[in-house]
Amino acid sequence: MSQGALSPGQLRALCRSGSYRGATAGIAPGFVQANLVIVPRDWAFEFLLFCQRNPKPCPVIEVLEPGQITPRTAPGSDLRCDLPGYRVYRQGVLTDEPDNLLNLWQDDLVSFLIGCSFSFEAGLIAGGISLRHVNEKKNVAMYRTNIACVPAGRLYGPLVVSMRPIKSTDVARAVEISARYPEVHGAPIHVGHPRALGISDLKLPDYGDAVDIRDDELPVFWACGVTPQSVAVASQMPLCITHAPGKMFVTDEAMPR
Amino acid sequence: MSQGALSPGQLRALCRSGSYRGATAGIAPGFVQANLVIVPRDWAFEFLLFCQRNPKPCPVIEVLEPGQITPRTAPGSDLRCDLPGYRVYRQGVLTDEPDNLLNLWQDDLVSFLIGCSFSFEAGLIAGGISLRHVNEKKNVAMYRTNIACVPAGRLYGPLVVSMRPIKSTDVARAVEISARYPEVHGAPIHVGHPRALGISDLKLPDYGDAVDIRDDELPVFWACGVTPQSVAVASQMPLCITHAPGKMFVTDEAMPR
Repeated sequence: MSQGALSPGQLRALCRSGSYRGATAGIAPGFVQANLVIVPRDWAFEFLLFCQRNPKPCPVIEVLEPGQITPRTAPGSDLRCDLPGYRVYRQGVLTDEPDNLLNLWQDDLVSFLIGCSFSFEAGLIAGGISLRHVNEKKNVAMYRTNIACVPAGRLYGPLVVSMRPIKSTDVARAVEISARYPEVHGAPIHVGHPRALGISDLKLPDYGDAVDIRDDELPVFWACGVTPQSVAVASQMPLCITHAPGKMFVTDEAMPR
Repeated sequence: MSQGALSPGQLRALCRSGSYRGATAGIAPGFVQANLVIVPRDWAFEFLLFCQRNPKPCPVIEVLEPGQITPRTAPGSDLRCDLPGYRVYRQGVLTDEPDNLLNLWQDDLVSFLIGCSFSFEAGLIAGGISLRHVNEKKNVAMYRTNIACVPAGRLYGPLVVSMRPIKSTDVARAVEISARYPEVHGAPIHVGHPRALGISDLKLPDYGDAVDIRDDELPVFWACGVTPQSVAVASQMPLCITHAPGKMFVTDEAMPR
């Protein structure tokens, strides 16, 4: 069976057994994928408030009760082991990239699922807009910007964006299409000038893989669900657990069309 | 100066000085009005999560940091005294209806502003749909239903709806118009059969004032921002402070058109 034909449940089972550790772009096509952020109960109000104040990078799909591990959007799943990889930040430092969270789990941990651009990418591709990182089987390029998110309590930090090179003739349509997906970052936040976002070199992404930009293309920037990882670092959260970039949680929800 | 010509700041100043204690429908027209819910910091995550899971009755406009009293949407205002009236619920019991909260205020209180149907009512009226409670200068009729909200932590309780009689020929258009205001409850949740919501007698609203329903009209039901008051009662929250029904917080934000 090719990876592309996996159901979300099959993919999660492969992750759980340790058989799949790759990126999830293009796997289980047609199903909503989500960024994962896990924080201690004591930080849950501030993180949910941060999402409410910063809906473009942090569109909330679902929030679980403290200690719960099975989202409503994926019955039978286990957030502690059904993703291909995780990151653990302690006091703002990336300290570990475990395969699962079974030894780390605590009853006071609150899990957030945040919308992921893989959903609107399917819309762009269906609209005839080619995406280089998909064609080259790379992770999308992501950059920390000089734009501060709206703080919430102790949480603050820079907006992270994903960048996709888009043919200049397609830019307007790419905006129109992605704007139809407000639950997954929506329209771009910027078109064309990386320096306006404080990005000095597109060849050096902070997360993911660089791709070339051709002469007939512009770099287009979308708010990115990796933003909470930059916030965990900036705010020196005592503990914040996330998916590894590009290795998302795949839900049973069909993608909006 | 007629009340209708007041600016939001003038109205808030009249409330603050104790000169205005009436309902706010039709006052400071063109500006967003909001339901107010104040909970202790220990309950703030659960209440924000409740709003996230129940966006139709509880569309969040703004959440203030603990102890803060001035929303971003109304610079210079003071939520403790700029509304015409308040309600205090303790352990799920309505214990007081004070004119202001100056003596009750605590540094751990978190204030939530929730969208209010007065905003979409302006859209309905502009669309040529007459609203009886407005014409008769009454508070809108509100009812507790047999529909359970999605719980969040310790918070649960019944959905509260507001009811407006609408001419049967206007029902579809009333749905279309109100659906344009997702930030203030959006489209109705039910049309026509109060018993389907567990409402046995429309003449006996749980909050607000009854109005007649004529032979050529249907009762139309919208999710209502008074829902948190029914939740405070059902969940026996130790402390929950709200606006008095019909006596809203008037922001400086222009209404969406």
